[in-house]
Amino acid sequence: MTSNFSFQLLHADPRCGARRGLLVTPHGAVDTPAFMPVGTAATVKGLTARAISETATQMLLANTYHLALRPGEDVIRDLGGLHRFMGWDGPILTDSGGFQIFSLAQNSRVSERGVVFRSHIDGRLLELTPERATGIQEALGSDIAMVLDHVVSLPCQRDVARDACERSIRWADRCRSAATRSDQVLFAIVQGGLDEQLRVQCARRLVALDFPGYAIGGLSVGEPQGQMLRILDVTCPELPSNRPRYLMGVGTPQDLLEGIQRGVDLFDCVLPTRNGRNALAFTDFGPLKLRNLKHQRDGRPIDSTCPCPACQHSRGYLRHLFMAGEMLGPILLSAHNIVYYQRLLAEVRAAIQAGGFAELVRAKQDQWRLGQDGEG
Amino acid sequence: MTSNFSFQLLHADPRCGARRGLLVTPHGAVDTPAFMPVGTAATVKGLTARAISETATQMLLANTYHLALRPGEDVIRDLGGLHRFMGWDGPILTDSGGFQIFSLAQNSRVSERGVVFRSHIDGRLLELTPERATGIQEALGSDIAMVLDHVVSLPCQRDVARDACERSIRWADRCRSAATRSDQVLFAIVQGGLDEQLRVQCARRLVALDFPGYAIGGLSVGEPQGQMLRILDVTCPELPSNRPRYLMGVGTPQDLLEGIQRGVDLFDCVLPTRNGRNALAFTDFGPLKLRNLKHQRDGRPIDSTCPCPACQHSRGYLRHLFMAGEMLGPILLSAHNIVYYQRLLAEVRAAIQAGGFAELVRAKQDQWRLGQDGEG
Repeated sequence: MTSNFSFQLLHADPRCGARRGLLVTPHGAVDTPAFMPVGTAATVKGLTARAISETATQMLLANTYHLALRPGEDVIRDLGGLHRFMGWDGPILTDSGGFQIFSLAQNSRVSERGVVFRSHIDGRLLELTPERATGIQEALGSDIAMVLDHVVSLPCQRDVARDACERSIRWADRCRSAATRSDQVLFAIVQGGLDEQLRVQCARRLVALDFPGYAIGGLSVGEPQGQMLRILDVTCPELPSNRPRYLMGVGTPQDLLEGIQRGVDLFDCVLPTRNGRNALAFTDFGPLKLRNLKHQRDGRPIDSTCPCPACQHSRGYLRHLFMAGEMLGPILLSAHNIVYYQRLLAEVRAAIQAGGFAELVRAKQDQWRLGQDGEG
Repeated sequence: MTSNFSFQLLHADPRCGARRGLLVTPHGAVDTPAFMPVGTAATVKGLTARAISETATQMLLANTYHLALRPGEDVIRDLGGLHRFMGWDGPILTDSGGFQIFSLAQNSRVSERGVVFRSHIDGRLLELTPERATGIQEALGSDIAMVLDHVVSLPCQRDVARDACERSIRWADRCRSAATRSDQVLFAIVQGGLDEQLRVQCARRLVALDFPGYAIGGLSVGEPQGQMLRILDVTCPELPSNRPRYLMGVGTPQDLLEGIQRGVDLFDCVLPTRNGRNALAFTDFGPLKLRNLKHQRDGRPIDSTCPCPACQHSRGYLRHLFMAGEMLGPILLSAHNIVYYQRLLAEVRAAIQAGGFAELVRAKQDQWRLGQDGEG
């Protein structure tokens, strides 16, 4: 592990797996549990770097596959690396492209050597080997890089899951051998589909390789929440308590609380921004669909306690923006939803510290459930 | 004129028509010459209210036709009026819908009573009479309302121009009779096509009706710049020097300097935002097309002296945003272009005050001309 990276466990809930920690990276510290908004193409859609800062976000995620295709990692390296490129001075985690093996399955072919994609943009071929995925992430200069993993769709045959899991472990080792930057750490990714035994074996073998952090990948790809939680239940205990744990691509506010309860420290998801662009606002009383006619003359903000720029306006105005197809609707609701996630995580961290995490979870779940009927 | 509205002429250039003034409205003061960004649907596309403020914009324009159709002026009135609705505390000017008689000609029919539009959104009919146009603007609660005018396409037959001009004068009078709000003033609009005699007559007859401000309308609808300037040359001298003069829908930075030189105080145009959305940045060295391949690895900002959020990034990053179809490209370039316009106007005001307006115009024109070849 490099000297400018560390993870400190500040407090562990004695009643469940929830942990309060501090992740230190070359670009600053992150209070965990933490949520990373997704900046796929080196921009969190619709938000300026300052607007992101103002959501109280500490760390972002960016996508290796997308940036390698456009503008190309060499362009970003020539322009000073990803932080400078996108004007974000805080920590950045890059994924490896492994998720696209699942999400762009029809345009990809996996071999032991790596994966070849046919670009979703222009049909050009892009090969990601473990070495190339590591090299791209080094050119980008993220604080945390991820190993290339083989993500499969669920449910799947056990031998498919086992094969992808074994390959992911071999690739993880190759990524580690390829890594050269002293100011970037590489996290391993536990695979194994919905098979508990595979997950446990994968976790143990990756832990034996001693990575500075561990992700749980290949979940939240369409399986029921219960299946994901079952896998978390068996996987988290296998991971070293002094290393950060990252549940990739998850999830709803409910998912976050469930993950945290099981010992997850880091999350990323497109949900707050994607749903925001589609006029859905997260709130403590459940999701609010801003296109609904009932908001037309509603002078109240989405949430009068929310400090975000959307909540400076009435629901009626926000509805109007979406009905008129104005960019400002997606801009404001993306900011609102990220602020909602970050406020939730801040509450979670305070609750863990104060020994009241279970009570917070119960209160939030009650509010969300009640709100679904009453909506504000 | 209402007591909370005034126009003070601070300085007049002895060598040309350029004037430095202060327009006071119920929602604050505006230094003139001034440029109003366009917020058609109660939003300057892509910019939050704070982002607009940070461009040094003092007054906005919003469109009566569009707001009457969506969300409806009654919705905006119920939500506290246009200022509160869009979260903009500064002055707002609303147009009257007259321009849409030209721009949506195929969906409109004019009679002496008014104009009937078939909505460009859903085909529903919208009638704008002078009384209705005034009523809508009163419901919106803008600081400055415009009379309903009959805008025709150019060039046109003299009797078409005369007919529309005469009707515009009668409608102006009807608007004035219909106006009831003490916290809103109504500006008249000089019409007359490209006919100097008609323009002069129209100006004189409207001046005789004693409006608190005068606009010059029906220009910048496709005619060559020289034709517009010829009309300004004969029209501005007919307008009272102690009333603000507003050249509607104009224009390029070059157009603004030409208009100011002839005595215009107010401008509005979609150009900075529309061009910004299309990857064109205004600069002192001419327009920059950010999609151009030559910007790919360019680490320089658009303009190193510009304080806007776009100029916190490299040209290479901005190009990437446009190539990737990311919202942040339009957002940043819209902000940049409005900042460019506002900085230009600030330079103009300082130059008029200091007696150096002609020199500023020459310097800007030289820079723009040279830049067209050298581009940065």
